[in-house]
Amino acid sequence: MPAKSTTPLSAGVIRTDLPMADGRTIRYYDIGTVDRTAADQRPIEAQPGIGELRFDPLVNEWVAVASHRQGRVFLPPKELCPLCPTRGDLASEIPDSSYQVVVFDNRSPSFTEPSADWALTEHPDLFTPDIDAAGKCEVICYTDQHEGSFGELPLSQIRMVMEAWRDRTREISQLPYISYVFPFENRGEEVGVTLNHPHGQVYAYPFIPPRATKMMEAAVLHHAKTGRTLMEDVIAREVKDEVRIIAQNNHWIAFVPYAARYPFEIHVAPKAHFADLAEISDEVADAFPSIAKEVLLRLDGVFGESMAYIAAWHQAPVREGRDLMRVHWQITSVRRAPGKLKYLAGSESAMGAFIMDLEPEQSAAQMRAVQL
Amino acid sequence: MPAKSTTPLSAGVIRTDLPMADGRTIRYYDIGTVDRTAADQRPIEAQPGIGELRFDPLVNEWVAVASHRQGRVFLPPKELCPLCPTRGDLASEIPDSSYQVVVFDNRSPSFTEPSADWALTEHPDLFTPDIDAAGKCEVICYTDQHEGSFGELPLSQIRMVMEAWRDRTREISQLPYISYVFPFENRGEEVGVTLNHPHGQVYAYPFIPPRATKMMEAAVLHHAKTGRTLMEDVIAREVKDEVRIIAQNNHWIAFVPYAARYPFEIHVAPKAHFADLAEISDEVADAFPSIAKEVLLRLDGVFGESMAYIAAWHQAPVREGRDLMRVHWQITSVRRAPGKLKYLAGSESAMGAFIMDLEPEQSAAQMRAVQL
Repeated sequence: MPAKSTTPLSAGVIRTDLPMADGRTIRYYDIGTVDRTAADQRPIEAQPGIGELRFDPLVNEWVAVASHRQGRVFLPPKELCPLCPTRGDLASEIPDSSYQVVVFDNRSPSFTEPSADWALTEHPDLFTPDIDAAGKCEVICYTDQHEGSFGELPLSQIRMVMEAWRDRTREISQLPYISYVFPFENRGEEVGVTLNHPHGQVYAYPFIPPRATKMMEAAVLHHAKTGRTLMEDVIAREVKDEVRIIAQNNHWIAFVPYAARYPFEIHVAPKAHFADLAEISDEVADAFPSIAKEVLLRLDGVFGESMAYIAAWHQAPVREGRDLMRVHWQITSVRRAPGKLKYLAGSESAMGAFIMDLEPEQSAAQMRAVQL
Repeated sequence: MPAKSTTPLSAGVIRTDLPMADGRTIRYYDIGTVDRTAADQRPIEAQPGIGELRFDPLVNEWVAVASHRQGRVFLPPKELCPLCPTRGDLASEIPDSSYQVVVFDNRSPSFTEPSADWALTEHPDLFTPDIDAAGKCEVICYTDQHEGSFGELPLSQIRMVMEAWRDRTREISQLPYISYVFPFENRGEEVGVTLNHPHGQVYAYPFIPPRATKMMEAAVLHHAKTGRTLMEDVIAREVKDEVRIIAQNNHWIAFVPYAARYPFEIHVAPKAHFADLAEISDEVADAFPSIAKEVLLRLDGVFGESMAYIAAWHQAPVREGRDLMRVHWQITSVRRAPGKLKYLAGSESAMGAFIMDLEPEQSAAQMRAVQL
């Protein structure tokens, strides 16, 4: 079992790693002098086995089968929340009685550390047998307070979460079996959230996921045509059109994209080129909390109620396309009006063809009109 | 306004076209001598304008913006159902007081007939301006009975729906601005169905939709590697493995695919090569109703309650890949257990990477065990 270790990061954040009872690792991110020592008191439990990757020959994509996840915790009452700190007798996932930000290995991971000789099948096809679902799945708790949301956190707390994202991206990218690191948040029962405590996740895939592959192909094609990076020209268009911009500061811009697919969709991008979160400078990281908060409060303000969303960090793959792909944050919400959701039905789901009921300019105007 | 016309189809079905008050067309599919003459008594109403196609440069896909759809009818009470026949004073979409199967142009279409000089932009990119959303959207009513479902229809009625699908595919494929014809059904409020009356839709796109493009690329690659069509080898694998087969007859086979993405997913494919529904022979069409019914009853039988699903006809595009792509029917359900849905959250939605909680062999066994 690995012993306790501490690592200094940017912005005065110290990371402390401790082992959990079942062999997983928990990482505390703290500002100030906090000594993390609380031991995981739960009985030692076997970790679930590794899932499998099956190759779907109809579209040439890997599908992960993680049947051990079927029994995972589903919307427990607040007093049984596994993401709250441990107070009293009920041991949660976090042994300490308080925390600032923590990241721990997911108890029901879709992707897991493989054996040393694991390798992704090259040129897979219909005849490729299934292989172990190598990868990493981590949970990131944004605060030890059970109520609230990412957008409602103090700016200093959002900055600490950003530091944790950067740290996880940097460290996980070193693993030889990882091709793509994906920090994200699902928020709201409408998108299937099974725990209400403010938290996100990091999935690290052993392949470049299908949508990232498509984004890379588009970026390569655009560069071949124009000599420029795609995101540079996307941002230039949004600046020129102006009507879809939601917020900006010296380092970041937030806009509803010209070809949005969801009733409320916001892309938040650094103005300069960074391939991933590990690459962005401290100055750019420092400028993120204010725009993140503004954007999420505007989103919640549209209907005066908290919006379900998926907030996804799109990054360059670990070892490819790093000069052409830029890190950015895509927030998409399926709520199109109070009480009405957009569903991904036949056209979107089976054909991948999106139909938008709301003009991007209209949703941008609604979000800009919100009084903060 | 076009006058009444009748067309004889296969299986003794006669199609009668009549104009609707606002210029749309309604098509009655009947067996036996039925004279369709009922006029649409509703006041003449302007049809909504055409939507627009915007090119999403991040992934090089078209997105349709149909903002006039936002106000469409949402789960009306049974007595206001627009898909029931017109009985008494409340005029529905179907002027006659009874019908067998009807198809009419969608009142709130995402894609519409364009002007004569419309053309899809070749080699679109970030700088491509939006264009009119050319295409066709039709509604197909499976029965004039408001209650029930496609799987509960008599075999003869399913055969008539099949005839309507074949007819629509054949006719719409003639339109110069159509690249892909997609008959499908969304069923259940969990997938956003806004009308409970048993019905499906036909979307005809002016481009090959992204997922069909991917399927075509996979089929082309497989053919280049092996000299065989992909679906031929997919079926051979399922026959060899046997454990995922749900039902079969002389002409069709139904199975949970090896790399299923949804907790309950069934592919129903003809055993011989047909590019689309227009191409399949009468004999093969005649063998469809029994397997369709068995599969849908097994699906509903798993939890003893009606399952929400998307049933999607994947066809070859109108003018490409017809020797390599085979028509088949993909039924996908997001229900993973009673009261529990699978959501397409961060991994699926943002990355396109699917995680399955249920092994395909397990869901196949559950469906096979259903007593019919």
